[in-house]
Amino acid sequence: MNEFALIRKYFQRPPRRVRLGVGDDCALLTLVPGEELAISTDMLVAGRHFFSDVGADALGWKSLAVNLSDLAAMGAAPRAFTLALALPAVDEAWLAAFSRGLFDCAERYDCELIGGDTTRGPLTISITVLGACPSGGAVRRSGARAGDDVWVSGTLGGAAFALSRLRDGRATSRDAARDALERPTPRVALGIALRGIASAMIDLSDGLVGDLAPVLEASQVGATLFVNQLPMPDVVAAEAEARRLAFALGGGDDYELCFTAPASARAAALAAGANANVAVTRIGAIDREIGLRFVDADGSSFRFQNGFAPKSFDHFA
Amino acid sequence: MNEFALIRKYFQRPPRRVRLGVGDDCALLTLVPGEELAISTDMLVAGRHFFSDVGADALGWKSLAVNLSDLAAMGAAPRAFTLALALPAVDEAWLAAFSRGLFDCAERYDCELIGGDTTRGPLTISITVLGACPSGGAVRRSGARAGDDVWVSGTLGGAAFALSRLRDGRATSRDAARDALERPTPRVALGIALRGIASAMIDLSDGLVGDLAPVLEASQVGATLFVNQLPMPDVVAAEAEARRLAFALGGGDDYELCFTAPASARAAALAAGANANVAVTRIGAIDREIGLRFVDADGSSFRFQNGFAPKSFDHFA
Repeated sequence: MNEFALIRKYFQRPPRRVRLGVGDDCALLTLVPGEELAISTDMLVAGRHFFSDVGADALGWKSLAVNLSDLAAMGAAPRAFTLALALPAVDEAWLAAFSRGLFDCAERYDCELIGGDTTRGPLTISITVLGACPSGGAVRRSGARAGDDVWVSGTLGGAAFALSRLRDGRATSRDAARDALERPTPRVALGIALRGIASAMIDLSDGLVGDLAPVLEASQVGATLFVNQLPMPDVVAAEAEARRLAFALGGGDDYELCFTAPASARAAALAAGANANVAVTRIGAIDREIGLRFVDADGSSFRFQNGFAPKSFDHFA
Repeated sequence: MNEFALIRKYFQRPPRRVRLGVGDDCALLTLVPGEELAISTDMLVAGRHFFSDVGADALGWKSLAVNLSDLAAMGAAPRAFTLALALPAVDEAWLAAFSRGLFDCAERYDCELIGGDTTRGPLTISITVLGACPSGGAVRRSGARAGDDVWVSGTLGGAAFALSRLRDGRATSRDAARDALERPTPRVALGIALRGIASAMIDLSDGLVGDLAPVLEASQVGATLFVNQLPMPDVVAAEAEARRLAFALGGGDDYELCFTAPASARAAALAAGANANVAVTRIGAIDREIGLRFVDADGSSFRFQNGFAPKSFDHFA
């Protein structure tokens, strides 16, 4: 049973008080007239989401950044967050570095720590973020329509590439690739700039193919991806084809935004990217036909080498 | 370094956007005119906050109940919650029982699950609750004044007694004491009924003495507790003095409310208890003099036997 199936089976019930409940990047709660509160929770576990020896400073940054990325994917502006922290022991040097990285990120994105819990236990970090967007302005997963373009911000595969280098023992502590993995940039300004432009949006935590699936499902559409248009960092693009496509299509932890928008909004999407200071690249199209297809530069079906099939990260695989 | 010191040193900064930040039962965020949002987070770790073999149904209940108890301690009405869950493996029988207990509690207290995260890891449950109270109506820790009475709801020491029996291998699965430990009742209706009556309030998760300390500190007052007035379940009252006082003064996990109120509000406090269907007992008085004192029925200083000194549970002890 994968994570989505588990949530659906045991934890998803029809929304009552909220406008949007379990199953999107954030829940939406209408409290202020004209404004919705977007809420998201992420949990990071040592040895699974990060190496136990990762720098505490980077870990503090990333713990909040991945949650802000969920707000960005709704077009919500960060407001506040809570932190629940289980620690094996009180290590003051670790705590000083962790809290420094956490508040670096909090201040950079104007998100205030308003409460939390600390306890002894296996190193685990659970953050809940609250953000705001104008009523009806949040970008949900379910709005993709046939004919829409598929876009992605930044580049794909950099974090997975860094992870593979770390696993091979080939990364240094000053490696730029390692920064991609350990200090991701949540695309907060881009998410806000795409309100009213994007028809559907998600952030890429588990990999493009895996994260696109719930958008297609929620929107009841399919998609065609232009394999040769996928933007990658130079270090990834230099890899052999099967490897670079595995990184770009299946690699997690990039925290870029993937969004759909009508073809009429191409100039607006590019302008949103320019305003937010991040490139956005058109990488596909939404189809009426269910399923995900991959095409080459000439529009013909892309032939993956050696039986390679793109797949994504599953938290329970 | 204890939990409070750790939070203060590394995670407490002056509130900016919120009316009340880190350091009370809940943070308060003003979003709707006339209403404040109360937010609280608790994390439960297997082997620390519960036995690994505790029934999943009871664990689901308790995970939410302890968070609702924080809302109750502000006088906030439950609205919604998020759940972050780390699981060692997907055990469907466990998940079915856990989610049943969780939703039992959610429905009983009208609190909607609106989002969350699941991942593989050591069994850890982190919940963030959102509640509402009228602007200025939340009961904070800092409002206790010299001359106020100190009250407590229900009885004290039942959960610690149950824990000691479980540790001794003397509890059965149908033990009422075990229910006190595993299925605590958050005093939601009482908390709401005490708006405008209580001057300060806290819920008892770590034990009376330990949990009262931050109230006294935040209010810059001291207190005298009437040792002979402490309400206890019969099974606890039947224990030898040192043991029963250790349970009542230092035992955690009761999730009763401890509140202060002016002497002029005694009838109102009793009526609030009657309306909420839970006894409230006057157990002490707030003093101008800093510190915590214990007195006997005749007002003389209470002599604890055998050098016994009341202490509370520290998550990092």
